Amino acid sequence: MRPSASRRTDSTPAVAEAWISFLSDYGLDDEFVGVCHGVIARACPAARIIDLTHGIARHDVRGGALSLRNAIGFLPVGVHLAVVDPTVGARGRDARRSIALSAGDEGRRFVGPDNGLLMAAAEAVGGVVEAVDLGRSPFRLEPVAATFHGRDVFAPVAAALAAGAALAEVGEPLAIDSLVALDLPRADVRDGALVAHVLGVDRFGNVILDAEQAQIADAGLRLGDALEVHVGARRHPARYAVTFADVPQGGLILYEDAQRMAALAVNQGSASELLRVTVDGELLVRAG
Amino acid sequence: MRPSASRRTDSTPAVAEAWISFLSDYGLDDEFVGVCHGVIARACPAARIIDLTHGIARHDVRGGALSLRNAIGFLPVGVHLAVVDPTVGARGRDARRSIALSAGDEGRRFVGPDNGLLMAAAEAVGGVVEAVDLGRSPFRLEPVAATFHGRDVFAPVAAALAAGAALAEVGEPLAIDSLVALDLPRADVRDGALVAHVLGVDRFGNVILDAEQAQIADAGLRLGDALEVHVGARRHPARYAVTFADVPQGGLILYEDAQRMAALAVNQGSASELLRVTVDGELLVRAG
Amino acid sequence: MRPSASRRTDSTPAVAEAWISFLSDYGLDDEFVGVCHGVIARACPAARIIDLTHGIARHDVRGGALSLRNAIGFLPVGVHLAVVDPTVGARGRDARRSIALSAGDEGRRFVGPDNGLLMAAAEAVGGVVEAVDLGRSPFRLEPVAATFHGRDVFAPVAAALAAGAALAEVGEPLAIDSLVALDLPRADVRDGALVAHVLGVDRFGNVILDAEQAQIADAGLRLGDALEVHVGARRHPARYAVTFADVPQGGLILYEDAQRMAALAVNQGSASELLRVTVDGELLVRAG
Repeated sequence: MRPSASRRTDSTPAVAEAWISFLSDYGLDDEFVGVCHGVIARACPAARIIDLTHGIARHDVRGGALSLRNAIGFLPVGVHLAVVDPTVGARGRDARRSIALSAGDEGRRFVGPDNGLLMAAAEAVGGVVEAVDLGRSPFRLEPVAATFHGRDVFAPVAAALAAGAALAEVGEPLAIDSLVALDLPRADVRDGALVAHVLGVDRFGNVILDAEQAQIADAGLRLGDALEVHVGARRHPARYAVTFADVPQGGLILYEDAQRMAALAVNQGSASELLRVTVDGELLVRAG
Repeated sequence: MRPSASRRTDSTPAVAEAWISFLSDYGLDDEFVGVCHGVIARACPAARIIDLTHGIARHDVRGGALSLRNAIGFLPVGVHLAVVDPTVGARGRDARRSIALSAGDEGRRFVGPDNGLLMAAAEAVGGVVEAVDLGRSPFRLEPVAATFHGRDVFAPVAAALAAGAALAEVGEPLAIDSLVALDLPRADVRDGALVAHVLGVDRFGNVILDAEQAQIADAGLRLGDALEVHVGARRHPARYAVTFADVPQGGLILYEDAQRMAALAVNQGSASELLRVTVDGELLVRAG
Repeated sequence: MRPSASRRTDSTPAVAEAWISFLSDYGLDDEFVGVCHGVIARACPAARIIDLTHGIARHDVRGGALSLRNAIGFLPVGVHLAVVDPTVGARGRDARRSIALSAGDEGRRFVGPDNGLLMAAAEAVGGVVEAVDLGRSPFRLEPVAATFHGRDVFAPVAAALAAGAALAEVGEPLAIDSLVALDLPRADVRDGALVAHVLGVDRFGNVILDAEQAQIADAGLRLGDALEVHVGARRHPARYAVTFADVPQGGLILYEDAQRMAALAVNQGSASELLRVTVDGELLVRAG
């Protein structure tokens, strides 16, 4: 949670274009996403929305956090609205806060629940600079429905920020060190093998791991090496390669994905089906 | 079908922004939705489209009508394009008309098939004020494909309205009382129990009922009460609560949803799976 | 690959609006599509993107090519970005080129892999006029990830073209006759029967064939005729009709679809389920 060196005040947005990126687990089968677009259009007609994805698995806070982190560097500076919110509307001890943050020194703002969802992306752009609690935000749509804070709290606040409101105008100050962190597993190297965990699986069945390039090198693995991937008692031959087509069709590769994370793929097939792994599952990769 | 008190003429659109909301059962796997966007972009480049949802179940006119009604109050004033059209292209006795409506006193216009799809939303904003038949609209793309009126009739008419055309310019006058109504079940209270029907099921497995808050009260149910939900011979314990987190994980609640309708949910689970109900299914809710 | 009669130079875009249509097999569950939107927004904030579809079946180059061809005439003139790319990142003999094309005389540009994906649409608007290789495009985002050329090559080049760059500025000249063509089956008429193949199946289960209206006529079939559809040894009664509602519910029709191609549908049912056909499958249609 390191404040960035060159802090900018939230009240001077960097951009003429009012960009809002929007990620959720709402799916596209219901009208939820469209309703949030409508709320934003009414409050800030100039806002332009980029739907990052609404296909985050239901209640998968970590999956949403990683998608947002993967995307953030490619999104225009603006407001980043994200809603994956398993405990929406909970009260008392279980209540999670609604928050807005500014992070980094480019003027990026984040809006969503205080459950870790926003934190990986906020870190990636330089860390949280300022945080506010939206629980009594003047921009909420009253009466706030207990089950649809996306519509009644987060979307209107995102629109207000896009329209030029300062962070301090949309909520009450919050201590940055009180924000809920995101728990992530951590790969490491043991007995010359890379011990990694499944962060997620994409549409193509590619298995994203929690290891970075440096850890692959620490395990003594070099591009082109034959490998073994152990999943419990099962062993799968593989190769450390640059891209899918470096092995025959059906072949398994370890590669550095587009976010520079270690990943496993099957050329024109599905690594997640081959390996039968699920999120958080542990894998061991060694020279084969 | 009550005309609203303060009728505005259709020829003076209220907004500089030309908003079009778009709902359909086209899904997103084919190019249908994108093609309709293209048609609108060519005819009215200034139009800004909000995709409400294209995930309405195939041919589910009622589901589409309810989604549009739920959303309408949150959408900017403009044109509301909706296409769920089981009998597209039918001729003779089975032919359904293509229509455009104005409704309420804000200047909202609706475009779609005359099968009830538009009616719940038009009612919700104040009732139909004017209606026209698009069967010979000068804005149709000729030749009109019998199976894709979205592209060849509805999208170009929506674009024309967004570009400033009056309702009378896009079609021929139609008697408001000749419009096809939407059939909906009606909850009621019998022997101290709420007898309700399933209007729909959302992505989270929440079961939307046809009962309003007043009917829950009429059945003598109070917030916090223990309940029984009867589905045929099966009985499920439940609680009348504000939000999911008011019961333990897996617990069933009756709650008022974000549209102020009664609904059933399982905390971090699926009420539709638990209850095994389908659309139009009858349920009985009583104090438990 | 006929150059169009009236060639326009690529450096004078026809439109003030900078339209980009975008088709892919990325799906909407991951953040891939949103990331490409972000890349375009950063490089060309004025660009307006029409998402044609991202639901092309994984690696289905032909399906993508046909969707783009079906849509192209309805899209505003601009840049057409398409990514279905089974061999992304392959090197050496298997490498496919990244290309940008201009086609027809309206100023349309296409961006994507050189695997046939762009060719049916480019043909449909008048044929390729100019082609460039993007392998060393100055607009690439470095370092180019081997597995995500959509983000690092195609989207930034599409944005550059939308922002006014000439084709010659984004890549190196390529011989038009070196471009990879799209393979398509061809219907024909044998022994008075139409022998056709399945090009695809849409969301409604409608089966799109490779036959045009003229070939239906050549097989001696007339609107209203009773037909037999042979799939291997199975025979299905059908009717040659204008639209679904011309037969009873559950009835099978041959009809001319919205792209003027022969297609098979079941009224309020699924022709693909009834006929149990898959892409490229052969069918025989004769008078019944």
